[in-house]
Amino acid sequence: MYAAIDLGGTTISAALGDATGRLVVERTIPTASHEGPAGVLARIGALINELAAQAGVKPAALGMGVPGLVDFAQGRTLFMPNLPTQWREVPVAATLREITGCPVFLLNDARAAALGELVFGLGQSAHTMVFYTLGTGIGGGVVIDGKLRMGAVGGAGEIGHQTIMVDGPLCGCGNRGCLETLASAPAITGEGVRLMRSGLAPKLYELAQGEASNVDPRLMARAAANGDANVQDALMRALRYLGIGAANMVVALHPDLIVYGGGMAALGSILTETVYAEIQKRVQMFPAGDVRVECSKLGSQAGILGAIALALKEGKV
Amino acid sequence: MYAAIDLGGTTISAALGDATGRLVVERTIPTASHEGPAGVLARIGALINELAAQAGVKPAALGMGVPGLVDFAQGRTLFMPNLPTQWREVPVAATLREITGCPVFLLNDARAAALGELVFGLGQSAHTMVFYTLGTGIGGGVVIDGKLRMGAVGGAGEIGHQTIMVDGPLCGCGNRGCLETLASAPAITGEGVRLMRSGLAPKLYELAQGEASNVDPRLMARAAANGDANVQDALMRALRYLGIGAANMVVALHPDLIVYGGGMAALGSILTETVYAEIQKRVQMFPAGDVRVECSKLGSQAGILGAIALALKEGKV
Repeated sequence: MYAAIDLGGTTISAALGDATGRLVVERTIPTASHEGPAGVLARIGALINELAAQAGVKPAALGMGVPGLVDFAQGRTLFMPNLPTQWREVPVAATLREITGCPVFLLNDARAAALGELVFGLGQSAHTMVFYTLGTGIGGGVVIDGKLRMGAVGGAGEIGHQTIMVDGPLCGCGNRGCLETLASAPAITGEGVRLMRSGLAPKLYELAQGEASNVDPRLMARAAANGDANVQDALMRALRYLGIGAANMVVALHPDLIVYGGGMAALGSILTETVYAEIQKRVQMFPAGDVRVECSKLGSQAGILGAIALALKEGKV
Repeated sequence: MYAAIDLGGTTISAALGDATGRLVVERTIPTASHEGPAGVLARIGALINELAAQAGVKPAALGMGVPGLVDFAQGRTLFMPNLPTQWREVPVAATLREITGCPVFLLNDARAAALGELVFGLGQSAHTMVFYTLGTGIGGGVVIDGKLRMGAVGGAGEIGHQTIMVDGPLCGCGNRGCLETLASAPAITGEGVRLMRSGLAPKLYELAQGEASNVDPRLMARAAANGDANVQDALMRALRYLGIGAANMVVALHPDLIVYGGGMAALGSILTETVYAEIQKRVQMFPAGDVRVECSKLGSQAGILGAIALALKEGKV
């Protein structure tokens, strides 16, 4: 049995699961990051111990996905853009090991999700997989010959930050024109709000009751399906940007599989078909018809399954 | 001793070399592709036999770089954009093996150059290397953990065809806005000609004697160094596009080394420093200061050394 933590900016998911990815117990608690790393880690450790006692097991290892850059070998945080600054340089693995008594492995959450997809999801059938997680940001992971690429500091796979538009919108990372600025949920939502406020999206206005805070990519997909041509156009444009990002990975590596996870993966076939078409249009140097484009089936369990996979592999990703 | 052929659209280079990359004999003949594959291959085979007799050796294998897509396993051409159409589906390896009596291995010329850089050049000191060859087109090769990535059809590494500008200029491949359309020698030369003809590049006009056919990136670098600010600006813009392409590979794979080969590598430090600066500006998700950016030292021998490397590895790239 393995323990798993998915640390987010607002919630922490915890679970115990076995080597097949079956979760036997799950729990979600608020992050409350204002408590600082010591307090939060103490709660995480206690939660793991509680779940283990409840299930009557001792986890062989704890895997943990965190939203930022980590020192993988040391199990230490480096840079956590969505958490307070005291979350830098925190010895998470050592602290949790002390509380739980089991070895702890730390990984960037997007890379953890890619690992989950590799071990428990669609990646099982692939040699080379490019994985994107689509949400507030666009994270990713690159798997080559069945192995997740890490790079020297675990930064490889940051493919949401390929520059797609040279002088494009400012990205959270500081660069301009990253794929994330053009196709993340906030990017799509922002354009939906603009269309709604400009009187260009009557159906979206109706569905969102005129409230910007109700607009999101899934509601926009509903509005588009119900006749809002401009919303459809905005969605398609964002999905084509995803296709350009994917095409840029195809010319570089010719993966056999591209997978989209995260909240926006719920868009389903409109996403995969648009991306596939853009790849076929953009990749002209060799036949790329064999590249499969899929949405993850792991849904909201992606993060926690990635952490289980990390524990299962004992950090040998 | 190994035999090597670098097949180009206008000339064929042939050589014999040893496992250290020392070339013992070299020869260049015109391609004369109008003779058709049978005639050209007969001349290539005879040339290899002549060089082998001259050197008093029997080559252990023949490696051959060709300008296009090849069926690597079968040693057959697939699509050769710069040669007449009868060069499609030609069983080059079988034909040359019959004439020369040694095993023949075929590879795309840019991938062969990447292999040469890996085995005999700067790649010897790298784990993960992104290699670009800058010339009429922009070719490339991606080396991961010391292994050249091929993909299913040998197309991996076509990183001159990442889309950098969504609705950019038309590329020879059929896509728009490929890196090649913004930073290849013809792209830079074309902008140089525009500036010269528009009266915006007096020094370039003087150096080129007003002749468009005299303009090329190296002459433009001389004009820039002699005070043509607009030419300097055009050059820097193209080099920054190369930097964006490189940054897109860094976020994906965090290579330890990026190498530029081909004619434009003669630009030297202005190229490597501009690319390095653009990488540092664009890659914000993790520290990428350790990525080395270099120009190949193999010069005009890059192609032939790649073919030697291919023969040396007996096609096991």
